[in-house]
Amino acid sequence: MTETGVIKVGVIGGGQLARMMVPPAIHLGLRISVLAESEGMSAARAADAVGDYRDPETVYAFAENVDVITFDHEHVPGEILRELERRGTAVHPRPDALQYAQDKILMREKLAELGVPIPAWRAVADEADLDDFIAQHGGRAVVKTARGGYDGKGVRVVSAADEVRDWFTALAEDGRGGQMLVEELVDFTRELSQLVARRPSGDSRTWPVVETIQRDGVCAEVLAPAPVADPATLDEAARIGAAVADGVGVTGVLAVEMFETSDGRVLVNELAMRPHNSGHFSIEGSVTSQFEQHLRAVTDLPLGDTSMAAPAVVMMNVLGGPEEGPMPVRYAEVLAAHPRAKVHSYDKQSRPGRKVGHVTVTGDDLAEVRAEAAAAAAKFD
Amino acid sequence: MTETGVIKVGVIGGGQLARMMVPPAIHLGLRISVLAESEGMSAARAADAVGDYRDPETVYAFAENVDVITFDHEHVPGEILRELERRGTAVHPRPDALQYAQDKILMREKLAELGVPIPAWRAVADEADLDDFIAQHGGRAVVKTARGGYDGKGVRVVSAADEVRDWFTALAEDGRGGQMLVEELVDFTRELSQLVARRPSGDSRTWPVVETIQRDGVCAEVLAPAPVADPATLDEAARIGAAVADGVGVTGVLAVEMFETSDGRVLVNELAMRPHNSGHFSIEGSVTSQFEQHLRAVTDLPLGDTSMAAPAVVMMNVLGGPEEGPMPVRYAEVLAAHPRAKVHSYDKQSRPGRKVGHVTVTGDDLAEVRAEAAAAAAKFD
Repeated sequence: MTETGVIKVGVIGGGQLARMMVPPAIHLGLRISVLAESEGMSAARAADAVGDYRDPETVYAFAENVDVITFDHEHVPGEILRELERRGTAVHPRPDALQYAQDKILMREKLAELGVPIPAWRAVADEADLDDFIAQHGGRAVVKTARGGYDGKGVRVVSAADEVRDWFTALAEDGRGGQMLVEELVDFTRELSQLVARRPSGDSRTWPVVETIQRDGVCAEVLAPAPVADPATLDEAARIGAAVADGVGVTGVLAVEMFETSDGRVLVNELAMRPHNSGHFSIEGSVTSQFEQHLRAVTDLPLGDTSMAAPAVVMMNVLGGPEEGPMPVRYAEVLAAHPRAKVHSYDKQSRPGRKVGHVTVTGDDLAEVRAEAAAAAAKFD
Repeated sequence: MTETGVIKVGVIGGGQLARMMVPPAIHLGLRISVLAESEGMSAARAADAVGDYRDPETVYAFAENVDVITFDHEHVPGEILRELERRGTAVHPRPDALQYAQDKILMREKLAELGVPIPAWRAVADEADLDDFIAQHGGRAVVKTARGGYDGKGVRVVSAADEVRDWFTALAEDGRGGQMLVEELVDFTRELSQLVARRPSGDSRTWPVVETIQRDGVCAEVLAPAPVADPATLDEAARIGAAVADGVGVTGVLAVEMFETSDGRVLVNELAMRPHNSGHFSIEGSVTSQFEQHLRAVTDLPLGDTSMAAPAVVMMNVLGGPEEGPMPVRYAEVLAAHPRAKVHSYDKQSRPGRKVGHVTVTGDDLAEVRAEAAAAAAKFD
């Protein structure tokens, strides 16, 4: 905090997550600035700087004018963040926590140490090791690159190791003795996500557990709260979310993505240490949105109420496709037909499968809300 | 709309109303820019330009890069706006409508022509005329300057014309033969406000009528919806609001401030042709906020649902005072004690009586919500 009392937050990364931090920053009177990768990024509204987050001097210069650094993505090298901390800048989430979202093998090791239920997994360095795991787990498995994957990228379901030979080759050329993660193919009935916000003091708040529905490896739809099949399952998901948040020592928002299996188990699939697609519903659907809560958490302000603002909230992503123009050309049609729909555009160029916006509808009846959100989002397809 | 489909809105005036248009512009993917009066204004987040709105060339240059011009305040001279329209820029509200919010005598003449119930009034040019009106209306009356007043400025309750001799002197020096407005002192029981949004096509939406509570001539508190004393009174207020919106041909958001009298009448007090303090509740309290709706209306997009998002919503203004520091220094205390409260800071320097922010609480029970909003706002005093 500066002498005038104004709190300054710097966000590294200029995507839609940074963009959606701007409205609550404006309302709460925080000054927000964004280090965007390039001109014209989604968060350009707030972009006071453009530069490469992998370049230490660019990041250090950006950090000089803010009270705390946080993130739109998890890709900033840990050594840069540790140096920022040594120079006296607050960084949230801290690099020691962030590493578990940066490296999936570290994440699995940590979750195993915490005793959290996870799929069977192994870190594999060669094809023989991978084929051995596949043979032991029913002839198919999920292979993930340890670093850099998102939205289904860096993930393949395989029945033989040679299906990821290109990744092994890349690892070998990298020369750092890297490994890949392989996991059992979980027979899940649905996917759940638990959002948690946690302050440096350890104080935390959770939102209701939501159901997420993926298509082609990308989040397509979120139902909030998750329809209750067995209340014990949602309680277990909430317990796991809180245990992971404390266990990894996250500061800011954490999303814990989970599988619910046909035999009633809940297994942790992925972690994200930032506002997450599964929490976009909270902009209209919760008293405190994930974006406001993230800002409160990283500035060490008391956390807000996470109650639902309506009994049923559904968020549908708008995915870009080759046939589409930018979202605004279809606003007149969508807004006229769906006056209750909250349309969010990330002001991004449309590309096949790219998340270019989302639509949220709130109401009393899940089926009705879901139908309206789907109809509104479909008009952008 | 540009060839890329992106819609660009230019807002003249850099106060909190412009500031609060930025979040919905971000969500809806509109590009918003602000012509602020000076550096460091409340809407500085969006301020792409700084300049004098009374200077025609400054305004014309600002307008060249946007699709539509709208306003944070009503003070831009009509001749500048008419020239903008001649040059092909859309201006909303249009200058022919805006004049009724710029000049209180024109406003009274228009409302009288529309047959809308208003207090007894007269345009007066000298003290004798004013004393005559006062004598005919119980010995006291309200005098208002025709132009430039807001938040109780330019308004005096007087029992003799010499109490506004300074204003008559200023009018005489102005040399334009100006008049002042005098109105009967209405014996009202409470004040109501009807917000209406109207598109260029004439399509309009109203929010529920709200009750506004003033202190020292400044809006202090808004109860949404207005508690129902007599449903017919609220129906009458809603009817008047819609009639005024159509009658003056507003485009964008219009606030119609009204008196409710002890004998059940509703009289129009003031008009504002922009988002208004009595509509701040709608940010969290309505499916579509007044700021989003204003942007939709001025860009001629279909209007959104104005249903309440909760049964009871209370907004309390935070007024600056000499003892106070900036709002953020008290966030920790307020947010910890009131996790449900939505705190809005305008990032303005504190000055006695100045609106520096507001607090909104939503819930099921008006008394409880009001108590919480009052307690949270009081911590900033």
